[in-house]
Amino acid sequence: MKTDKSVEFKIIGTIHTPHTTIENIPIQPVGGKEYRGVIEILPELTDALQDLDGFSHIILLFHFHKTKGYKLKVKPFMDDAEHGLFATRTPKRPSPIGLSTVKILKIEGNKIYFEGADMLDGTPLIDLKPFYTKFDNRPDAICGWLDKKDEKVVRNMRSDDRFK
Amino acid sequence: MKTDKSVEFKIIGTIHTPHTTIENIPIQPVGGKEYRGVIEILPELTDALQDLDGFSHIILLFHFHKTKGYKLKVKPFMDDAEHGLFATRTPKRPSPIGLSTVKILKIEGNKIYFEGADMLDGTPLIDLKPFYTKFDNRPDAICGWLDKKDEKVVRNMRSDDRFK
Repeated sequence: MKTDKSVEFKIIGTIHTPHTTIENIPIQPVGGKEYRGVIEILPELTDALQDLDGFSHIILLFHFHKTKGYKLKVKPFMDDAEHGLFATRTPKRPSPIGLSTVKILKIEGNKIYFEGADMLDGTPLIDLKPFYTKFDNRPDAICGWLDKKDEKVVRNMRSDDRFK
Repeated sequence: MKTDKSVEFKIIGTIHTPHTTIENIPIQPVGGKEYRGVIEILPELTDALQDLDGFSHIILLFHFHKTKGYKLKVKPFMDDAEHGLFATRTPKRPSPIGLSTVKILKIEGNKIYFEGADMLDGTPLIDLKPFYTKFDNRPDAICGWLDKKDEKVVRNMRSDDRFK
């Protein structure tokens, strides 16, 4: 197998949010419903947003640009036990890509206004995809150690500085 | 806003599938249930898979390594009308990252056996995340032009050569 390879992706825009420090950010959009953000797409890509306003949700893929390095085992926000990093959503990953599904409020020109901002202000956006119920929902998925966590814990959980 | 920037990500493994040509691939895992694949993670990352076997599904982020370039408007597999590329899941994107949610069959060492292979054999894997129902499901999402499509069409749709 080939190893030590990498691939370069284009930054297609910037995500503006109310979160200016890494502490106290909701750990996922479900915990960040009250936080609104604005995605500013590169002006030359504006036409690529045509018909996106028919969708209620989009999946954002973004760069965790403030994290450095990773460990194979991590103690995530939602548990006291260690897990392999790929069994968690820690931002400290070999490829630090964040994935958040957020709700579109409105689209104006190259700006997408959304609800569910759980990333830092100034986060570089790498890709965005329309959320499609038939492709993306798995209502009966089993979720390992996370299934033991209470929904209220998820909604109220906020980040600390452990993933700086 | 900063423009023309890019970011480099590590390839963390390779996805082996039965699909050796770009034609006739199911366009999403829901259409590829019968196809099984094997993810081979870099051996030095094996420990990062600990506890992933408690999850039924994972989200794969991979490089569409055989596509070149993109157009702002595309005619996707599932429609005869043009849409902005960001309102579609076309592989020809400014940052050609694929996102597929697949079902884990078993994990052995650095190999993850899965169901729902909808990518080319030899596809470079960039990241994988545990699918978490509370973060990732949006049962009531509205899906624009895609909502007008029949589920049978989605399941039976296969790729052609338009995104080579």
